[in-house]
Amino acid sequence: MKLSKEQIEEIKDLQSQSYKTKRVIAPELEEVLYEAIPILDHGFIRVIDYMGNDNSIVQAARVSYGKGTKKVNTDSGLIKYLMRHWHSTPFEMCEIKYHIKLPIFIARQWIRHRTANVNEYSARYSILDKEFYLPNKENLAAQSKNNRQGRGDVISGTQAQEVLNLLKNDAERTYNNYEEMLNERYDGSIIDENKTGLARELARMNLTLNTYTQWYWKTDLLNLMNFLRLRADHHAQYEIRAYADAMLNTLKKWVPITYDAFMDYRVGGTEVSSKGKEVIKKLIKGENISIDETDLSKREWNELMQAFNLQDKLI
Amino acid sequence: MKLSKEQIEEIKDLQSQSYKTKRVIAPELEEVLYEAIPILDHGFIRVIDYMGNDNSIVQAARVSYGKGTKKVNTDSGLIKYLMRHWHSTPFEMCEIKYHIKLPIFIARQWIRHRTANVNEYSARYSILDKEFYLPNKENLAAQSKNNRQGRGDVISGTQAQEVLNLLKNDAERTYNNYEEMLNERYDGSIIDENKTGLARELARMNLTLNTYTQWYWKTDLLNLMNFLRLRADHHAQYEIRAYADAMLNTLKKWVPITYDAFMDYRVGGTEVSSKGKEVIKKLIKGENISIDETDLSKREWNELMQAFNLQDKLI
Amino acid sequence: MKLSKEQIEEIKDLQSQSYKTKRVIAPELEEVLYEAIPILDHGFIRVIDYMGNDNSIVQAARVSYGKGTKKVNTDSGLIKYLMRHWHSTPFEMCEIKYHIKLPIFIARQWIRHRTANVNEYSARYSILDKEFYLPNKENLAAQSKNNRQGRGDVISGTQAQEVLNLLKNDAERTYNNYEEMLNERYDGSIIDENKTGLARELARMNLTLNTYTQWYWKTDLLNLMNFLRLRADHHAQYEIRAYADAMLNTLKKWVPITYDAFMDYRVGGTEVSSKGKEVIKKLIKGENISIDETDLSKREWNELMQAFNLQDKLI
Amino acid sequence: MKLSKEQIEEIKDLQSQSYKTKRVIAPELEEVLYEAIPILDHGFIRVIDYMGNDNSIVQAARVSYGKGTKKVNTDSGLIKYLMRHWHSTPFEMCEIKYHIKLPIFIARQWIRHRTANVNEYSARYSILDKEFYLPNKENLAAQSKNNRQGRGDVISGTQAQEVLNLLKNDAERTYNNYEEMLNERYDGSIIDENKTGLARELARMNLTLNTYTQWYWKTDLLNLMNFLRLRADHHAQYEIRAYADAMLNTLKKWVPITYDAFMDYRVGGTEVSSKGKEVIKKLIKGENISIDETDLSKREWNELMQAFNLQDKLI
Repeated sequence: MKLSKEQIEEIKDLQSQSYKTKRVIAPELEEVLYEAIPILDHGFIRVIDYMGNDNSIVQAARVSYGKGTKKVNTDSGLIKYLMRHWHSTPFEMCEIKYHIKLPIFIARQWIRHRTANVNEYSARYSILDKEFYLPNKENLAAQSKNNRQGRGDVISGTQAQEVLNLLKNDAERTYNNYEEMLNERYDGSIIDENKTGLARELARMNLTLNTYTQWYWKTDLLNLMNFLRLRADHHAQYEIRAYADAMLNTLKKWVPITYDAFMDYRVGGTEVSSKGKEVIKKLIKGENISIDETDLSKREWNELMQAFNLQDKLI
Repeated sequence: MKLSKEQIEEIKDLQSQSYKTKRVIAPELEEVLYEAIPILDHGFIRVIDYMGNDNSIVQAARVSYGKGTKKVNTDSGLIKYLMRHWHSTPFEMCEIKYHIKLPIFIARQWIRHRTANVNEYSARYSILDKEFYLPNKENLAAQSKNNRQGRGDVISGTQAQEVLNLLKNDAERTYNNYEEMLNERYDGSIIDENKTGLARELARMNLTLNTYTQWYWKTDLLNLMNFLRLRADHHAQYEIRAYADAMLNTLKKWVPITYDAFMDYRVGGTEVSSKGKEVIKKLIKGENISIDETDLSKREWNELMQAFNLQDKLI
Repeated sequence: MKLSKEQIEEIKDLQSQSYKTKRVIAPELEEVLYEAIPILDHGFIRVIDYMGNDNSIVQAARVSYGKGTKKVNTDSGLIKYLMRHWHSTPFEMCEIKYHIKLPIFIARQWIRHRTANVNEYSARYSILDKEFYLPNKENLAAQSKNNRQGRGDVISGTQAQEVLNLLKNDAERTYNNYEEMLNERYDGSIIDENKTGLARELARMNLTLNTYTQWYWKTDLLNLMNFLRLRADHHAQYEIRAYADAMLNTLKKWVPITYDAFMDYRVGGTEVSSKGKEVIKKLIKGENISIDETDLSKREWNELMQAFNLQDKLI
Repeated sequence: MKLSKEQIEEIKDLQSQSYKTKRVIAPELEEVLYEAIPILDHGFIRVIDYMGNDNSIVQAARVSYGKGTKKVNTDSGLIKYLMRHWHSTPFEMCEIKYHIKLPIFIARQWIRHRTANVNEYSARYSILDKEFYLPNKENLAAQSKNNRQGRGDVISGTQAQEVLNLLKNDAERTYNNYEEMLNERYDGSIIDENKTGLARELARMNLTLNTYTQWYWKTDLLNLMNFLRLRADHHAQYEIRAYADAMLNTLKKWVPITYDAFMDYRVGGTEVSSKGKEVIKKLIKGENISIDETDLSKREWNELMQAFNLQDKLI
């Protein structure tokens, strides 16, 4: 991640500002406010603003006139109860806003989470930065053989280098031709004074999907957790998981009690189907049970066994 | 509006707190934070929290690293432009949270605005306050003769007093019987030690729709304006307009530049249909035009003439 | 439930219509289209329209040009997979619309599900029907002693009769006074020709919360299941569960494969927290474990034991 | 637009199906159901399913038991009234589902309309078609000089040809390298039996933004009109307007009365600000007024004059 001098100045400027407020604050999150946390090769997340803290959840659940809290113990118990029983509305009472730089193909996954507010850098209006995502060699995974939507082993040796060369060369060539069509370099210099450039809204179509874009993204705490639950999961594509992992850290700084409940009930938890429960009940009773005695598919059986670390029962 | 001693203490306590923050603030809104602003006879609104200010809109529109602003003039011009051209996403970047006490029949109108977060005081869990809305005499309007959804002249004299008596007596009687069924008074005292009370989730059904409820209500700036545009309008029912008017004041304290643009383009503005434009064009040319030469209904014609103060052309 | 002659005619009229369509249909749901299915004493649900069937989910998941299906087996496997892994967007591709008559206090719970479209009968514009919900004696539950949000034993004998009398009398009296203030009976007859009635939007505030209202309610299949999961659950208030149960039946007629997956993974399934998993793992290994060796609260422990039918371990 | 033999068969198959239904239908829309309507060089829209018609709006607005209509005149009047006064919920009672093929850079604009359901063809799972958008020469516009977000004159001659060559060559080269990295051609043939291909979720990042994708897109009538209002407008980028225009045609076939009201009040209408109204009032009175006597910016003044065809007053 490379910030321009001017950008670094702007960020420092924001970080040095200090106002008095009667609003509640999240002290640990204040510490990292505005900071550009690097993700992948050129991306970042920055927490720009937030509203509320763990206390706001308690206050809303109780619809109280004051702080709505007695002591930490009670608050923690209430937050865990709300999480466990899907009483989700109090978690909507907190809000967070990020500035994020990310490759376009990841932005396209991300935007499918609709309950958020987004302002993206406009390539109709401005020229995009000359930055594209190139994976590290250890993330250059082959197509999985048995999961059409997954990754297999890492590609290595010459083939890895070839892939990286293709990605790099194609991104550079298409970007150069983007500038050519615009008749303008990314730094604003005109290429040929006798030509007029193609409309930006058209020229951008020549860019590859690993080009970086950026946006302001704002969501409430409930929807942030919905996002993280899916995107910090091991089924998620590595590149979006890198963002989700960094956001989990900001979640911890912002609402530590909620974070603990979220890790326990959502991230670390599992769901057991009605049929799966019958299997677990028998296992607890010490009965031997094989998949043939159940209505589970092979895939379901394995998912269930893995959830409870029963590696020896995988088929 | 009557707050208990304890509630007054809790509010004072919040108002006296002062934290340092790196976040942007809205100085005028800070002044009224937590304050209970009285509405109707027992209702109120209180601003509990907010995120962002006028500057945040500019910052998001530009997806900037820093404050995203040059000078007040430019910001104001950009905000007006965004408002005029329905570029609505930057306005979603600010958020506000209210604590509101309001009669149930108004809460039922209010909740139709779905793009907001709500936590309502639970009458399954707690006993509702003994407070009901009784209109002032000057708001005791008759059913309109020509608008099935509107109010006509004010009812006066004996009939007005009769109406108020009915409302008062019925609300009190049903509330007393609510307590009777609960076997518990609103202050928590048990009525008959030998009885068990009816479940709260059932007993509440005996209350009248003018009973007050309360909730935490949070929304973004765009949806707040959508709400205010409809509910501060003269077509809105007086009782919800009373809330909307007080909220317009908080809007002004929060985002003064946006407030001005909103008043100019939305609240004070008008929409002219394609057919209506033809009429206005002819009027500008000095042509005489009657409704028969148009495709407008009588109602449309009158709405158009009123929008441009052409009282003499009403039919 | 009592329908007027005219209403019965209108419904029959709709049921007898038959059109040709190229759209997919749900044959079993067609059978009950428009029919008023009675709920509680005066309520009903009616399926008015629907879009899509099980096949549409498969088609959307595959983004196919044609029917998007090979054979029932494959479709069923795909739908189960989507349900299990929270791939929720294909379920949003089906839509259903109900006409529902329900008591206002239930409507207020219902409306908290925001991702739906609603048109409610307007009491600003029209006079509400003279119908109020009175519970059956077997549903007249006392307040629970140990769960502030729940019901305990059924109230019986004289006290039950007293409660029903209070509910009935208060609802009738407030309705009569509603008519009095309107100066108009629910059948449209004027009470006193020399008086003008109070505006409808005001008079309605005198009605009790068990008065019936009605609305058109439309939602997609995913959000219908979210609604049913919470409202057909035993934690839900009996009165809303009565509606949810009837709607589960229509779900089964509409999308039978999805219904099966929903019952297995959501309704009959359970969630196990990270800490809960540790407990289950030990139980499967045959280890004896007590709550003291865990971080679970008493409540969590009991919920876990109940989920797996370990009644002897309840504490 | 080029469909495969198999796709043509599948579409024909769907078009030949005929079911009986008790649901309301939209006869003209049935005519074009499933048909692939070509847009741009390789794109299309297909109406896959719909729910409701003009009548459903009337029915919902009246919360009626039957068809909710008397005669066409009354219905039309009601629909126009609802549209004029932003009574938007009855329009949410109709739903439509499209299958759409479109370039990725357009899909990225489109998806910003969040109140819709989407299932996109997965490039994590499958290989994208070898199809990219190349503009017609008459759409090869230069960047506008005075509007940073707009198009200016058409680029012509050699420069036009150069642009098209760059676009074509870059798209083809990056697609070929995409296949190379996948070690698989778009027809499924393996390139080198001794290599394993890069994961699809990674390889796709090499594609350019004019590559075509496809999705199922479903929305209600209100949100469809919100989409069309912005995207069929002359401020919208030509490429998305091409889709919006074709969708306007399907709107007309589906709900002809609503379509008329939409064209009159939204598409052909204009908004006049509070300050703008003062100007129009003076012009109607025959007064001469210049921009200096107003608070309008130059841009606002010109927008107002253009809305009422006062070309001679442009400055």
